[in-house]
Amino acid sequence: MVITVKTDVPYNVIIENGAIDKVGEVVASMYKSTTKVMLISETNVFPIYGDRVIKSIKDAGFAVSHFVYEAGEQNKTMETVMQMYKALGDAGFTRTDLIVTLGGGVTGDMGGFAAATFLRGMDFIQVPTSLLSQVDASVGGKTGIDMPFGKNLVGAFHQPRAVITDPETLKTLPEDYLIDGMGEVVKYGAIWDEELFADLESGKALRDLPATIYKCVDCKRQLVEEDAHDKGNRIILNFGHTLGHALEKLHGFSGLSHGRAVAIGMLKVTRLSEAENLTEEGTSDRLEALLKKMHLPTDDAEFPIDKIIDATALDKKSTGRILNLVCIKKIGETFVYKTERNLLVLKYKILEEQRSRNAKA
Amino acid sequence: MVITVKTDVPYNVIIENGAIDKVGEVVASMYKSTTKVMLISETNVFPIYGDRVIKSIKDAGFAVSHFVYEAGEQNKTMETVMQMYKALGDAGFTRTDLIVTLGGGVTGDMGGFAAATFLRGMDFIQVPTSLLSQVDASVGGKTGIDMPFGKNLVGAFHQPRAVITDPETLKTLPEDYLIDGMGEVVKYGAIWDEELFADLESGKALRDLPATIYKCVDCKRQLVEEDAHDKGNRIILNFGHTLGHALEKLHGFSGLSHGRAVAIGMLKVTRLSEAENLTEEGTSDRLEALLKKMHLPTDDAEFPIDKIIDATALDKKSTGRILNLVCIKKIGETFVYKTERNLLVLKYKILEEQRSRNAKA
Repeated sequence: MVITVKTDVPYNVIIENGAIDKVGEVVASMYKSTTKVMLISETNVFPIYGDRVIKSIKDAGFAVSHFVYEAGEQNKTMETVMQMYKALGDAGFTRTDLIVTLGGGVTGDMGGFAAATFLRGMDFIQVPTSLLSQVDASVGGKTGIDMPFGKNLVGAFHQPRAVITDPETLKTLPEDYLIDGMGEVVKYGAIWDEELFADLESGKALRDLPATIYKCVDCKRQLVEEDAHDKGNRIILNFGHTLGHALEKLHGFSGLSHGRAVAIGMLKVTRLSEAENLTEEGTSDRLEALLKKMHLPTDDAEFPIDKIIDATALDKKSTGRILNLVCIKKIGETFVYKTERNLLVLKYKILEEQRSRNAKA
Repeated sequence: MVITVKTDVPYNVIIENGAIDKVGEVVASMYKSTTKVMLISETNVFPIYGDRVIKSIKDAGFAVSHFVYEAGEQNKTMETVMQMYKALGDAGFTRTDLIVTLGGGVTGDMGGFAAATFLRGMDFIQVPTSLLSQVDASVGGKTGIDMPFGKNLVGAFHQPRAVITDPETLKTLPEDYLIDGMGEVVKYGAIWDEELFADLESGKALRDLPATIYKCVDCKRQLVEEDAHDKGNRIILNFGHTLGHALEKLHGFSGLSHGRAVAIGMLKVTRLSEAENLTEEGTSDRLEALLKKMHLPTDDAEFPIDKIIDATALDKKSTGRILNLVCIKKIGETFVYKTERNLLVLKYKILEEQRSRNAKA
C-alpha cells in the first residue's frame, strides 16, 4: 500500500510487509548512484535490522555509512545530534547526500533534525520500526530533540523524501512498545475514524496491523496536507497531548512513555469535556474501556492535576494564560476548547471531588 | 529607503539613518502588544546600542528580555545557541513571540538559527550593525553556526520578518570591521553592478554609505527572490567564497576575517579564470587595485594553494571531486566554472610559476 503525502515536495509512505529489504530499491528510484547514504539508528534496532538495510542499500549500488547511538528518549539531545553532525562531516557528506533513519520516533525525530540542519538541510528517508513511529511520528515532517525543560522544544519542519514502513518489524518490538504505540492508534480512532475505534474495540484492528497503520497514516496525511506547519487544523492531532506532554515532563521523560501519557491525557480531557456537557454522554467511559483493553493506563498515581496543568506552561501550543485543549465531541469528531489555566485547575478539582463522591456512593 | 524582499512571507529591509530608535515602532506595526520580545546581542554591540533598542521596544508597549553573549566568531557555536534556548525557555517564550537580533553577522546568523529551531520556528527581526551584515548577512534567511570542522555547517533557511538597518551604527564600528565589510561590497560590484564597482574606485560609494548599502541589498533581494533555498542562481553570491571559506577554516576561524578571506578568494579565482581566457583581460588587475585601495588583503602568506583547495572539501557547495567556482566574465557579470579539485591545484601551480617568472623578468 502506498500513500502519497502532498506537501511542497510530495512523498510516498510505503506500507508493506518485508519493505525493510526494499530500502535500497526505493533509494535507487530517487537518487543518483553517487549519492552517499548515512544510516542513522540506535543500539536496540540496529543489531536486528541494520545489516538487512545496509545490504539492501549496498546491493542497490550506494556507498553507505552508519551512525548508531545509545537507544532511549534520554539521548534525544543536542549532544547526540552533534555526534551525528560529526559523523556526517567525517564522512564528507554534502547537501545532495542522504540520511536514512532506522528506528522509532526518537531516531526519526533526531535524525530528521540532523537532516534539517546539516548544511542547512539535506534529504532524509524514514524507516520507522515502532508502532508509534509507523502510525504517527514518521509522517508530517516534525523533527526535533528534547531540552532539559521540555520535550521536542528544539526542532524544525522538514518533510522526509519517503517513508518505508514494514509492519513485520513490529514482531520484534517489545510488547511494552507495542502497547505504547496503541495510545496513538486509539487517538486516531477517537479524533477521526469511528470505524477504526470500533475495530479496536472488537479486536479486528489488531489482527490486520497493515490496514490499521494505513488508516492512521491516511488521517495524518489529510491533516498534514492542509497544514504542513501546524498552524491550523493539524492541532487536532494534539488530542491528549497537552496534558500528556506535561506528564512526560513531570516524569523526567523516562518514567512514563509517550503513548501511555497520551492515553491518560485523552481520558482526563474527555472526562472534563463530558462533565461540561461538551462531549456526548458515555464517551469517556467508552474511551476508558478501550484504553484498559489495550493495557494502557488511565490515570497517573504520582502527579495531581494542578501539577500537570502547571507543567503545560512550556508546551509549544500553549500561548500564555490560555490553554487550547483539543477535545472530542464524540468518537471521530473534535473541537478546540479554550480555557484559562487557573480556571482549568478549579474545574478539575470539582470534577475529581464529584467522581470520588460517586465512587463512594 | 525600504526594499521589500518577496519570499514566501515578504519582508521589508528598512535602510535609514537613525533607524535603530525605530525598532519598537516597526515591531508595533507587525505584532500584538502581548508578544514577548527577546533581544539577542553581544558584548561589543549591546553596551553601545542595547539601551536605545530596549527603550524603543518598551516605549512601543512590549515586554522585552535580553540575552547577551561574548562577542566573537569563536562563540558562533551550538553551546551559545543552547544558552539562547535556555533564556527563551526561562522567559516562557512561545511560538508567537519574537526574537530581535542586534549586532553583526554572527549575531544574526546565530540568533536567526535559534529562531528557526526554538519550538520548530518563531519570528525574528534583524538589526544589523556591521557593514558586512548590513550589505549581506541580514538579508536572505541563511542562519547557522560553525562546527569545529567548518563554518556555517549547521543551520536553517529562515527568513527574518523585517531587517532594520541604521547606517549610522557604522560610525561606532571599528575600522577593521568596516574594511572587512568592504570585501562583500566589492563582491556585489564585481558580480552584479559595474557602476557600484566604479563608484568604489572613485570613492563616491564611501561618501554615501546608505546608497551603497541599498545597492548591495537590492542585488541580494533579486537573487533571494529567485532562489530562496540557494539551489540555483544565488550561487553567484558565492564569488570568492569557496576559497575564502577554506582560508578562514585554515586560519581556525579567527586569524582571518570573512571579508578579507573573500577578498583573497575573489582575486585568486579571477587570476585563474583570466589566465584561462575566461575573463576579460585586465579584470584581475582592476580587482586587485580596488582591494588594495580598500586596505583589503590580496594574498595569504601562510597557506599555499594546494592546502586551500584541500580545505574546500567540506564546503556546502562543493559536491565530491568537482568544484563549482563562481567566476566573473568581466566586472558585473558572472559564470560558474566547474573543475576537478586535483586539476585545479595543478592549474594554480602553473599560474603561480608564470607570475613569479614574470615578476622576476
